[in-house]
Amino acid sequence: MVLQTNGKKILQNVDCEAVYASCEFLLQYITGFVAENGFVIVDKDGTTLYTDKRYIEAAEKQCKGTDVTPVLYKRDESMKRLAEYKSVGISFDQTSHIEYVTLEKAGVKAVNIDKQLSELMSVKNEFELSCIEKACKIAEEGFLATLPKIKEGMTENEVAAILEYEMRMRGAQGPSFETIVAFGAHAAVPHHVTGETKLCFGDEILIDFGCRVNGYCSDITRTFLFGDDGKHEEFKKAYAAVLKAHTLVKENLKSGMTGAQGDAIAREYLTEQGYGELFTHSLGHGIGLNIHEYPGLNTKSETVLKDGMVFSDEPGVYVEGEYGIRIEDTVTLKNGKIKSFMSLTDRNLIIL
Amino acid sequence: MVLQTNGKKILQNVDCEAVYASCEFLLQYITGFVAENGFVIVDKDGTTLYTDKRYIEAAEKQCKGTDVTPVLYKRDESMKRLAEYKSVGISFDQTSHIEYVTLEKAGVKAVNIDKQLSELMSVKNEFELSCIEKACKIAEEGFLATLPKIKEGMTENEVAAILEYEMRMRGAQGPSFETIVAFGAHAAVPHHVTGETKLCFGDEILIDFGCRVNGYCSDITRTFLFGDDGKHEEFKKAYAAVLKAHTLVKENLKSGMTGAQGDAIAREYLTEQGYGELFTHSLGHGIGLNIHEYPGLNTKSETVLKDGMVFSDEPGVYVEGEYGIRIEDTVTLKNGKIKSFMSLTDRNLIIL
Repeated sequence: MVLQTNGKKILQNVDCEAVYASCEFLLQYITGFVAENGFVIVDKDGTTLYTDKRYIEAAEKQCKGTDVTPVLYKRDESMKRLAEYKSVGISFDQTSHIEYVTLEKAGVKAVNIDKQLSELMSVKNEFELSCIEKACKIAEEGFLATLPKIKEGMTENEVAAILEYEMRMRGAQGPSFETIVAFGAHAAVPHHVTGETKLCFGDEILIDFGCRVNGYCSDITRTFLFGDDGKHEEFKKAYAAVLKAHTLVKENLKSGMTGAQGDAIAREYLTEQGYGELFTHSLGHGIGLNIHEYPGLNTKSETVLKDGMVFSDEPGVYVEGEYGIRIEDTVTLKNGKIKSFMSLTDRNLIIL
Repeated sequence: MVLQTNGKKILQNVDCEAVYASCEFLLQYITGFVAENGFVIVDKDGTTLYTDKRYIEAAEKQCKGTDVTPVLYKRDESMKRLAEYKSVGISFDQTSHIEYVTLEKAGVKAVNIDKQLSELMSVKNEFELSCIEKACKIAEEGFLATLPKIKEGMTENEVAAILEYEMRMRGAQGPSFETIVAFGAHAAVPHHVTGETKLCFGDEILIDFGCRVNGYCSDITRTFLFGDDGKHEEFKKAYAAVLKAHTLVKENLKSGMTGAQGDAIAREYLTEQGYGELFTHSLGHGIGLNIHEYPGLNTKSETVLKDGMVFSDEPGVYVEGEYGIRIEDTVTLKNGKIKSFMSLTDRNLIIL
């Protein structure tokens, strides 16, 4: 497989003579090559990947057939090279201040390209979509393999361990973020820290998880019951409302809407149903090489949503000390409409 | 358990009126509390943890009995507060340039405290040592549970999945870095990417792994044989040399030596044995909330090693296309001498 490179595309979209990056995910986005250490310079003649001797041989092999030339890292030389450009685009957000100071001292004229970068990276190409699709499929398969293994008395950590194992065995590189497994009222805490609480009959279970394939993330949440003790009437009502909100977004969110308009689809419905105040977070966030990236789908987002963007559709309702419900798919916009990457798992309430 | 806070200690060691931090591991180091989002201000009156509504309640509970006051995040107010100090210590390395620009625009007089921070953080207290010890124990136990499950035909990814599962089931939060499992000649690549290669009889196996407990990392490498096909004479000779180098470090590295002197213990022995050129990386690196941190143990390191520092002892020998050997423990200095956190696994060559 030829590596996917994006240096040229970035250069065409910024008003700079060159582009420089050193953080891991930007290195991967620009060169296709994964290295923990190195930096990259893009100019009109192509892309140079500077890395150390641990990576150079693999880089030379993998970058064949691309516009990327791997070069053994020499900091001083490359700083001199950078100083000669009229302007160099860098991510102010992904560059540490100490690195900025080094660039400045070397005479580099740095310009912030965060806006252009996040917009470019938000629209995924076929390769990126296929990685995310695979990460979503593995997450769903892992979840389905985990369900029959969940037993009374297991801890949240144990359920997380099984789920992560099942995803790993199906080709995931690892979780895309720290798996959240919440039993009972823990589910009311959107960022609950998975712990040693044991599962009891009748508990609700909320699992928010995902995995990585070629660096790309999936993100999915499912909420279900571990047996029905007959005490879940309020929960079931709220579940139906969250599911409806989640589904309305899939049906009605279209390319060309803003993030705020997307968020409003779920928020207005939940408000009508009396749950507006309990939907305490935003509808969704962009997903790619980072688990949270541009664009946001929240009440303030003016971002116009476009075909090829990938984001979460995750409305939720939380009642402190009682229950929490979140239903989340990773979705994309295709031909103007929402296409979910999740097709294997049921969104209707599962009772184990 | 009362949270471990370090704001006061940092303030005493820097020449600033206040200290500011926003990156996750510094937030944890300073306040003891784990939040994905927020920032902290330390001054003579104590530590203020600014975070959002997702974390505020948990922060209020957990910070009781400490000098940390959690406050709901208000960016503008806190910027004003920061601007009033004569000088504010921040990590230039852990602050993005865009955040620095924001601070500067708000009139904050920021001073770089990276040197003091990394020195302070390199010497661990009892709580930190106990977390690392637990992370090391879980790593070793996970490894021992994995060994009997390794079978011919398994992929590197499958072995990694089993190992990560075994660590997770024993209380690890997750791996401390992407687990490296290398079969055969893959072991010659120090930063091999775990893949779909299948295990054959007679292969060597190198596993470099670790896990986290309360955020603190362990780091361990073991190299062994999956059956002995009689073709490993060179490997075995080199293994004995690497093991001797690893052991010499444990016996002879003392508090007060520099990182370079520590590195030299292993390097000189391997050089005498004819392997000097094949030991292609440094002896070790500091370990804590980050898997790689200060101090480095390499040929150039002038850092004086002290009691309470935690680092890796990981000499290696690599012959491209043939074999690679690395033997690594996470160790600390106590009463002037090396104490390893690893006591359960054998360093003598294991043949499965």
